[in-house]
Amino acid sequence: MKTLNSTTSYITEHLYYPLEVPIHEYIVNKWSVPFLLAIFFGGCAIIMAATVMFVDRAHNHLPATEKAAIWWLVISGTIHLFFEGKFLTDSKGYFSLNHFQMGPAQDLFGQLWKEYAFSDSRYLTSDPFVLCMETVTAFTWGPLCFVVAYMVTNNHALRHPLQIIVTVGQIYGLILYYATSMFDHYYKEVTYSRPEFLYFWFYYFFMNFIWMVFPGILLVSSVRKIANAFNTLDKINGKKYTNGSAKKQL
Amino acid sequence: MKTLNSTTSYITEHLYYPLEVPIHEYIVNKWSVPFLLAIFFGGCAIIMAATVMFVDRAHNHLPATEKAAIWWLVISGTIHLFFEGKFLTDSKGYFSLNHFQMGPAQDLFGQLWKEYAFSDSRYLTSDPFVLCMETVTAFTWGPLCFVVAYMVTNNHALRHPLQIIVTVGQIYGLILYYATSMFDHYYKEVTYSRPEFLYFWFYYFFMNFIWMVFPGILLVSSVRKIANAFNTLDKINGKKYTNGSAKKQL
Repeated sequence: MKTLNSTTSYITEHLYYPLEVPIHEYIVNKWSVPFLLAIFFGGCAIIMAATVMFVDRAHNHLPATEKAAIWWLVISGTIHLFFEGKFLTDSKGYFSLNHFQMGPAQDLFGQLWKEYAFSDSRYLTSDPFVLCMETVTAFTWGPLCFVVAYMVTNNHALRHPLQIIVTVGQIYGLILYYATSMFDHYYKEVTYSRPEFLYFWFYYFFMNFIWMVFPGILLVSSVRKIANAFNTLDKINGKKYTNGSAKKQL
Repeated sequence: MKTLNSTTSYITEHLYYPLEVPIHEYIVNKWSVPFLLAIFFGGCAIIMAATVMFVDRAHNHLPATEKAAIWWLVISGTIHLFFEGKFLTDSKGYFSLNHFQMGPAQDLFGQLWKEYAFSDSRYLTSDPFVLCMETVTAFTWGPLCFVVAYMVTNNHALRHPLQIIVTVGQIYGLILYYATSMFDHYYKEVTYSRPEFLYFWFYYFFMNFIWMVFPGILLVSSVRKIANAFNTLDKINGKKYTNGSAKKQL
């Protein structure tokens, strides 16, 4: 334990990578890893089940792919807004480094972030890119996920343009997230993830890669639907319109 | 001048901020600032003039706003692909920090980057976020600018979805660019820009803010055009179609 300034203390005796990185007032989690993971995935499962039931009741006319889009947008928006938003309000990186609260946190989300940080210690060290990217994700892409989910239910004209904005934001943020830590790993020889399979491959790679897959599917789908719409209108304006064909092509 | 490793030397006697940051093999520019700026803005003016003339000859039927969109996309794509691409190939941050070539560069683009870096020294220090963001900008948004410019000329059905992708990428990258350096300035008390008006307000703020304004205009325009297209198709499918109204509303 070493003191970097007069008011706060930084811990260097911990299991995060790089092993010598100073973490502000770090205290080990009091709950076990299986318990924390059960709470997190159990919480996600409950939100997902509630969304599935609500959509089946309130919007049962929607095709299966549109229902699935709503499920994803709601779970993704919930994680952005509440889980990642909680990281930001807890870390308080914006107000003062001296008030960074994640190290000693023992509330549920604080412990979850301290567990996740074994795969990326930048979440415990006020990394500027991670904090800025998470701010945009939590407070822009998070709310927009819910807006787009709502727009799926009433087939709103803004659904596909907004869906492209959200998904490009999620995918670009993730590319920069992977790329910055890989750059530091390979060329600065600074590694933020513990090497074990659970941390590197499951937390860091797989849990984030989900945001490449589903946003990628929704992005491609929106681009195609918009292109089909313009092609259909071109045909209509080009006098090729016959009653009903526009609907069929959409 | 201090040596950080056995094969390369880092300079700390320079005028970049923070003043103590080590810059690899830095040598002062041999050309004057007015000359460098004249070359840069003169080059941009020539490319712009050539684009304007080409569009007026080859695509004179296009409305003025569409012509202006092409001018912007071509100049923006050129800067991304050639100027920012040159930064990446010169800096060689990807291959080895020991081969980082910007510090001693005396070619035109090398000197331009060393001049710009007075407003952001991260361009001379292999900052991971700046390198990764510039890679995506140069090799994804750059080429896509040219693709979208081409699609404007033939009113391609993919023009607006791709235009949203490019502009969201440019705007999000810029927000993170501003935000990361402002975070370090205010909360880590590390400042990358010299304080003079020319460096902070003109190079760092204004020259980048251009990429908030024009991509912002194009983004809003694409979102509206797509929403209009879906609304028009809804009316057609809702039997409200009367001949000619679809075209008028687009």
